[in-house]
Amino acid sequence: MAVPRLAGIMSEALRRRGVSPDHAGYVVDGLLLASLRGIDTHGVRLFPTYLAELDGGRSVARPRLRWRGRKSASRVLDAGRALGLVAGRVAVDEAVRLARDHGVGVVAVANSNHFGAASCYTLEMARRNMVGLAFSNSDALVAPHHGRRPFFGTNPLSVAVRGKGDELFCADLATSQVSYSRVKHRLRQSLPLEPGWAVAPAGEDAAELPAGAPIAALKPLGGHKGQCLGMAVEILCSLLTGMPLDHELAHLFSPPFDEPRRVSHLFIALEIAAFTGPAAFRSRLSQWLGAVRRQQALGAERVLVPGDLEAASARRRARSIPLADDDWLALTAIERRLGR
Amino acid sequence: MAVPRLAGIMSEALRRRGVSPDHAGYVVDGLLLASLRGIDTHGVRLFPTYLAELDGGRSVARPRLRWRGRKSASRVLDAGRALGLVAGRVAVDEAVRLARDHGVGVVAVANSNHFGAASCYTLEMARRNMVGLAFSNSDALVAPHHGRRPFFGTNPLSVAVRGKGDELFCADLATSQVSYSRVKHRLRQSLPLEPGWAVAPAGEDAAELPAGAPIAALKPLGGHKGQCLGMAVEILCSLLTGMPLDHELAHLFSPPFDEPRRVSHLFIALEIAAFTGPAAFRSRLSQWLGAVRRQQALGAERVLVPGDLEAASARRRARSIPLADDDWLALTAIERRLGR
Repeated sequence: MAVPRLAGIMSEALRRRGVSPDHAGYVVDGLLLASLRGIDTHGVRLFPTYLAELDGGRSVARPRLRWRGRKSASRVLDAGRALGLVAGRVAVDEAVRLARDHGVGVVAVANSNHFGAASCYTLEMARRNMVGLAFSNSDALVAPHHGRRPFFGTNPLSVAVRGKGDELFCADLATSQVSYSRVKHRLRQSLPLEPGWAVAPAGEDAAELPAGAPIAALKPLGGHKGQCLGMAVEILCSLLTGMPLDHELAHLFSPPFDEPRRVSHLFIALEIAAFTGPAAFRSRLSQWLGAVRRQQALGAERVLVPGDLEAASARRRARSIPLADDDWLALTAIERRLGR
Repeated sequence: MAVPRLAGIMSEALRRRGVSPDHAGYVVDGLLLASLRGIDTHGVRLFPTYLAELDGGRSVARPRLRWRGRKSASRVLDAGRALGLVAGRVAVDEAVRLARDHGVGVVAVANSNHFGAASCYTLEMARRNMVGLAFSNSDALVAPHHGRRPFFGTNPLSVAVRGKGDELFCADLATSQVSYSRVKHRLRQSLPLEPGWAVAPAGEDAAELPAGAPIAALKPLGGHKGQCLGMAVEILCSLLTGMPLDHELAHLFSPPFDEPRRVSHLFIALEIAAFTGPAAFRSRLSQWLGAVRRQQALGAERVLVPGDLEAASARRRARSIPLADDDWLALTAIERRLGR
């Protein structure tokens, strides 16, 4: 679907629900950015769910945003059930402001919702000459290492920074080995899973199941270390804000849509100029990324820099975003209800 | 070897070389802590190498420590070739001081050396009521995902925080799938490697090689995502301080011992009290860690909390640390040269 049409549908649907133009811009920009970058699971596909959250009351169109904390370089934003993309962007603006004053700025966010792709926030910080770090907790889908049931979220983390020109390093990863979407896609197509991806209901690796058989949980990235990372994200988000733990969170796509989910995030902005010369930093970063890309790979494979595939997708998709049938139907249904 | 004897050997050897009592204490405490916690690769085994660095001039006994940066919550420590455990502990003290004033404190360290186990620093921050984060770059041992040659260090990261009483969550992980020590141990014993651990010289997974055959490089944790994490650590350390990149660093155990290695680190302290009530935080953290330990595991396995095995080792080893034959010989040789 053409990008302006998508933007129009989303903006108007949010406006009709009383979302301010600034806040609607954050949501539309964030979802479009993810879709443009090819992260379809975190792109415009989420918009119907976000509307259901607004309509049900899980999120509110005109949130009361409250700041806590008396220390100079760190703040807590009580987002008052804001849409996650609103809460996150407001938090990032403040983290960057704090970092300009103090060299580092940290904003923890309480009472939020699903915040989309973590890279939305780190890219914004990177564009403002920061090293940006973002973390979010999420509902339980991942078993502990050796575990049998979901207890941790896929708890994403992202780190981004800008090189020369508009070159960007952008790592954005769930702390599970693979995403639930990727597993679901394989199951739907009755394709086998790879070892280390998921746990079967009886506890063994789901790669041993017949293709298409249901799984019990995702596995953490690389085993024990992924569990360490997922738990660290939960500490930085749920624990540091006093919000629900991963296993206490309602699932994003499931009812009740009329109760707050109370998702939590953490953003850290490090001002490059507080540590080293920004021009030399950016030039050296780009040289290094070039050297990474030139590393010899096995066979037909290529060595990639985190964010390169996404940047290529954004160039390819600049005008139009391909939608899956379901998503096309859901978004055009919203469009029809707007009477457009 | 009895802990007091080990401490005596190391303290005296450092004193004879002109290291101040405070600085010697950092080195001795750091190496003993790692050995007590069972992280033998980062414990007293490293002491002979650290002495070789001092004797050669790679590190200096009386470093000139210089502070840079004019922003209030972030600083750069030019460690002037200090031993890494000295540079790291001085940096941590400052990060904690900054965090008490500003809610967060960040210290980047330039011109340092191998800093031992990353958990030395995060545990110190945790004991002072911070969430502690530590990162270090290191010499190249890890291939990019799909790559064939080492280009990234094992670039460790650690996150620690204290629960009720003296309970500690402590994640400390290299961003490779496994450590080089673990691979070397398997190779020496002619045991096979597991898929995902290492790259063979021709580029295929080293698990396909005959047992004991030499490898070309370690693989990143879980594939692409581990490369993302390793690169993020390199950005936070080498790039943010203007220090050499991983592949530009001399190897820890190899000559020249008379040239500076210029290792770099980053420490972040987040003051819990700046975000939420510390008592409730600690109590809730401990409840959650208990719930993690009670998660059902497959067969005879157990679900572990990061740091539990290490804490159990520290209780077991409180009086005496078992040493491998080589390490016993090296440490008693140092003892003899001291005329003790």
